[in-house]
Amino acid sequence: MSSTYGKNLKVTLFGESHGPAIGCVLDGFPANFTPDLEKVKAFMARRAPGSQPGSTQRCESDAFEILSGLFNEKTCGTPITAVIKNSDAHSKDYSKLSDLMRPGHADYPMNVKTEGANDYRGGGHSSGRIMAPACFAGALAIQYLESKGIKIKGRIVSIGAQKNEPNANDILSPEAKAVIEAARAEGDSVGGVIECEIMGLPVGLGEPIFEGVENRIAQAVFGIPAVKGIEFGSGFSSTTLKGSENNDAFTVKDGKIETATNNHGGSLGGMTSGMPIVFRAAVKPTPSISKPQKSVSLSKQTEEELVIEGRHDACIVPRALPVVEAMAAIAALDLLLD
Amino acid sequence: MSSTYGKNLKVTLFGESHGPAIGCVLDGFPANFTPDLEKVKAFMARRAPGSQPGSTQRCESDAFEILSGLFNEKTCGTPITAVIKNSDAHSKDYSKLSDLMRPGHADYPMNVKTEGANDYRGGGHSSGRIMAPACFAGALAIQYLESKGIKIKGRIVSIGAQKNEPNANDILSPEAKAVIEAARAEGDSVGGVIECEIMGLPVGLGEPIFEGVENRIAQAVFGIPAVKGIEFGSGFSSTTLKGSENNDAFTVKDGKIETATNNHGGSLGGMTSGMPIVFRAAVKPTPSISKPQKSVSLSKQTEEELVIEGRHDACIVPRALPVVEAMAAIAALDLLLD
Amino acid sequence: MSSTYGKNLKVTLFGESHGPAIGCVLDGFPANFTPDLEKVKAFMARRAPGSQPGSTQRCESDAFEILSGLFNEKTCGTPITAVIKNSDAHSKDYSKLSDLMRPGHADYPMNVKTEGANDYRGGGHSSGRIMAPACFAGALAIQYLESKGIKIKGRIVSIGAQKNEPNANDILSPEAKAVIEAARAEGDSVGGVIECEIMGLPVGLGEPIFEGVENRIAQAVFGIPAVKGIEFGSGFSSTTLKGSENNDAFTVKDGKIETATNNHGGSLGGMTSGMPIVFRAAVKPTPSISKPQKSVSLSKQTEEELVIEGRHDACIVPRALPVVEAMAAIAALDLLLD
Amino acid sequence: MSSTYGKNLKVTLFGESHGPAIGCVLDGFPANFTPDLEKVKAFMARRAPGSQPGSTQRCESDAFEILSGLFNEKTCGTPITAVIKNSDAHSKDYSKLSDLMRPGHADYPMNVKTEGANDYRGGGHSSGRIMAPACFAGALAIQYLESKGIKIKGRIVSIGAQKNEPNANDILSPEAKAVIEAARAEGDSVGGVIECEIMGLPVGLGEPIFEGVENRIAQAVFGIPAVKGIEFGSGFSSTTLKGSENNDAFTVKDGKIETATNNHGGSLGGMTSGMPIVFRAAVKPTPSISKPQKSVSLSKQTEEELVIEGRHDACIVPRALPVVEAMAAIAALDLLLD
Repeated sequence: MSSTYGKNLKVTLFGESHGPAIGCVLDGFPANFTPDLEKVKAFMARRAPGSQPGSTQRCESDAFEILSGLFNEKTCGTPITAVIKNSDAHSKDYSKLSDLMRPGHADYPMNVKTEGANDYRGGGHSSGRIMAPACFAGALAIQYLESKGIKIKGRIVSIGAQKNEPNANDILSPEAKAVIEAARAEGDSVGGVIECEIMGLPVGLGEPIFEGVENRIAQAVFGIPAVKGIEFGSGFSSTTLKGSENNDAFTVKDGKIETATNNHGGSLGGMTSGMPIVFRAAVKPTPSISKPQKSVSLSKQTEEELVIEGRHDACIVPRALPVVEAMAAIAALDLLLD
Repeated sequence: MSSTYGKNLKVTLFGESHGPAIGCVLDGFPANFTPDLEKVKAFMARRAPGSQPGSTQRCESDAFEILSGLFNEKTCGTPITAVIKNSDAHSKDYSKLSDLMRPGHADYPMNVKTEGANDYRGGGHSSGRIMAPACFAGALAIQYLESKGIKIKGRIVSIGAQKNEPNANDILSPEAKAVIEAARAEGDSVGGVIECEIMGLPVGLGEPIFEGVENRIAQAVFGIPAVKGIEFGSGFSSTTLKGSENNDAFTVKDGKIETATNNHGGSLGGMTSGMPIVFRAAVKPTPSISKPQKSVSLSKQTEEELVIEGRHDACIVPRALPVVEAMAAIAALDLLLD
Repeated sequence: MSSTYGKNLKVTLFGESHGPAIGCVLDGFPANFTPDLEKVKAFMARRAPGSQPGSTQRCESDAFEILSGLFNEKTCGTPITAVIKNSDAHSKDYSKLSDLMRPGHADYPMNVKTEGANDYRGGGHSSGRIMAPACFAGALAIQYLESKGIKIKGRIVSIGAQKNEPNANDILSPEAKAVIEAARAEGDSVGGVIECEIMGLPVGLGEPIFEGVENRIAQAVFGIPAVKGIEFGSGFSSTTLKGSENNDAFTVKDGKIETATNNHGGSLGGMTSGMPIVFRAAVKPTPSISKPQKSVSLSKQTEEELVIEGRHDACIVPRALPVVEAMAAIAALDLLLD
Repeated sequence: MSSTYGKNLKVTLFGESHGPAIGCVLDGFPANFTPDLEKVKAFMARRAPGSQPGSTQRCESDAFEILSGLFNEKTCGTPITAVIKNSDAHSKDYSKLSDLMRPGHADYPMNVKTEGANDYRGGGHSSGRIMAPACFAGALAIQYLESKGIKIKGRIVSIGAQKNEPNANDILSPEAKAVIEAARAEGDSVGGVIECEIMGLPVGLGEPIFEGVENRIAQAVFGIPAVKGIEFGSGFSSTTLKGSENNDAFTVKDGKIETATNNHGGSLGGMTSGMPIVFRAAVKPTPSISKPQKSVSLSKQTEEELVIEGRHDACIVPRALPVVEAMAAIAALDLLLD
């Protein structure tokens, strides 16, 4: 495993979905900052089960306990550790999954990697639940960034093939919700695309060639279990543009150098350009579905039908939205601390 | 800068486009391996200027000299250093670029980052030319991987909006070539999509959450200057599939567990599944074009028209193809050495 | 801060002496290993307060709780997290230490580093108490190493100027104990030298130049707050030998290449030679003493007399002994996993 | 291998003693700094063969060529690469050393590690000659540090058992020189102790627990082949002091907090205290001696007498002095860039 991200701000995630607890350690977070823990809770609530259309009914509070790194309500410069107890785990739902590999899940390679010692209950360490402490870390990063004038803002671009253009204050349009409900009714799932902007970073952050803006954000965002693609600025669609269309003209605005458009997504040569960093992440349809699927038995080495019981999200995109923002914030703070 | 990639195999790239030389150091390459240097040259020739349709006419041999790490024609376990002299640099072409920022290039953030001390000639360290030593490193990695039964195979999926389905032994279809020639005629450029497969890696490589297959390949591939997106398996198009469609059914074939389809692109939960790793990279249209563009003068803080002289690729995708393979090989070998 | 050690086995320590808890995360520990937790407790008890001659009377059980990484009593390949609650902290003893800097302690630079936000109670994160979770990590590493035939064995070489040659099963000679008791009677403290052997590592581990045996063990052992020096093999005394005396003659013994002596301390050119790795660590007299000392007031920028109240070790060397073994084990396992 | 040091300033050393060239890459060196290359040469000359009492007669200029990272005589923010050609290598001297292992050298573990593929000529990558590019890197670091008011100063404390108190401008006393000459006359060698001070670093640098001042300097200094021990401040002799003697009283001097003594060697809890960092390194007697020694033949697995021909240093301590300063400077700059 290597559940640690970052060069300056090191974020380590630990825990299994049905073990005693999950949590994180943030090493390198700036000292002398006073986080607003109520805001942290509110941020984490956006990811919590049951909080969003399409989400699982597992009713577990993601209440965190901070074990270290805070003193007199301020960060004291040492590793910040937060723990979330696992309280509502229905382990019996998962017993047969030690032998029958769920399609689209980490079960099979994890079994091989660990010689069968993996905690298969609820996906263990590979569960989406491990993103709860990532949101804790991200919430702290977001607050610190805001204190420096840097903002993170995500939105859902599409659910399945449906574009999503919700009213203000909503995260989903009625059409997008309908796509999720239709999938749920079939015992199936749908994915979607999330876009995220990071605004206000100074010019020149990012270390080309291998620790540039794209490299480091991609490393963080691919830490989200269901993400299978990432693109910056005009991304894949840039490949159908001419250079003269895709190049962003430079302008001078209020004595500041900017670009008229932002096809480069805020990163030139791996360094921040001063324009908003814009990226999109592809979130695959969650592999946990109720429909019968073709699996294999490891012990018998035969093909078997698998029906996964338990509670599933029909669409994890709404809950993944704050996770993408959290990863963006972690990467942005790591860049800023260079 | 952080021009070093890798955990086990550390690849450092150095050099500026118009400085004395470019090169690389490979630290951690396995000892006692006999590389075929003629094959290395042949691989590097695929990236060399003038080698491909659409490429610049800069006629520079990418002849490398190995300074360390080989003894009696075998790798001796120590850092392997290769150097490529810069011989045909027309620095005069670039003089005005110390003040006029090229749209779509690294010039502006690099100038800010280095307080104006950057080598702006030909893009300096941010030049695509720095990918020549990356190809040297990749060629060695490919040979070592082949000795272990692991193969890397790239292909061009599209040029601009044109799908590319060439005849065997060609890398471009006549239609794709026509798209490039049309762009060149206009003094413009086009991009494209490259797909790459890594076949034969054992099951269970990759360290979730943050050093998984996707994270590490993405970190390497975003090291290529023009890449603005990456996706694995069904990638962005997975977001329009149902879970039941996107999940890959497990099968048993000749006593080996496989999946019937490969929408997961060879990575489940960040670990190799035993299926080929498949990813696609979006290569933007090269920003170096002959058409007049809107730029700014740093010294005057005014908007200025910029005409870039010198020799340009109308399309770098064919030359980027071996670079993507090289990065895939570097990442795959780093994974294998875990 | 950078409270993380290791390349393959990453050990992160967290917590403050008087915060809610201290603990550690082990990322990269081999899967499918069944630790004996009673043995872990017994190992940790050797470091616990009150366990050793000369130690503080703070009566705190170092009972740990494992939050992650174990499943069915086996390591499951994911980060192992252990937490030790802080229960017996007398914070009132420390209140004046926010302003008066203790000589020989981390208080002053930590105050400057954190802009005064540091948790000064009991030394915070810089307390020797943070070595309790290091012992947890080390105990696991020792057990794993033993399963591979590798043994770690420490001993106390001297206390103050007194050589220590105890009877079997004792760690201190009566003379060494007397030195400690004399220091305690004066409200003072004494240091000592600890030697540690690592036996059974295969030949050729260690990555010269900068990640060799000495570099990596030194990095771990200097993580112990009171250690101010380390030497390998004949170390500093090698400087008074001739080359012909210090060189270890090679021999062949039972078909195995060995050296007749071990002045090189098991490391040649930064790589294991197959002989036991032998190193000695200098443990300074603990700076926490009862005698009045010269300090400064940060707020008043004046010199002040300081009397530190509370419970102190007169000699931490006996409690540091298992910590040195733990750090040796962590470094040895990290080397072995290369 | 892992011939790379540093977190912010990454220094990679490459090359074999008798290969085409040796050199280094510095990644992360600050941009926009104008090094004085004549001063770099002068610094490197202090390490060059023949430059010092006791050194080998190998007459090789350590002339370096800079391949990258400089533009218009300033650092341009990209990796700085310097290469030193190997011109005067008498490879025939070393032919039998592929089979007969030299006592005290890296030959044996390197042979095992590389399956016999190692470049045994002159010790290959493990040769002291690899310290020439380390001196190049150190010389640049020293110049940059000086521009920030930070100074590095080394001195030889002892040669063999002889204390060294030379006149100003000398590095050795006549008595110390005599010890070296006596060893040379016998075909033997002697070691010594080098002390180094780093003055002027700000308070609070260093990341406890594992990336503190001692950890990071030790990691760099153990990169020097012959170093077998390191101690900070009162180091090993602190173990014979009382806490009340070893603790450094705080004082206020010209409105600045200092300590009256410097037994802590400038590091408290792994962080800089504002006092000079003082450390001593134990340099073993060089293992290359002319006297016959007991070796083994790898091919025959028998004990054999070995006489090493060629040119040897009777004492490498004078040449190691600038190397210790170089490593101190590299570590200090890496700390400063945190």
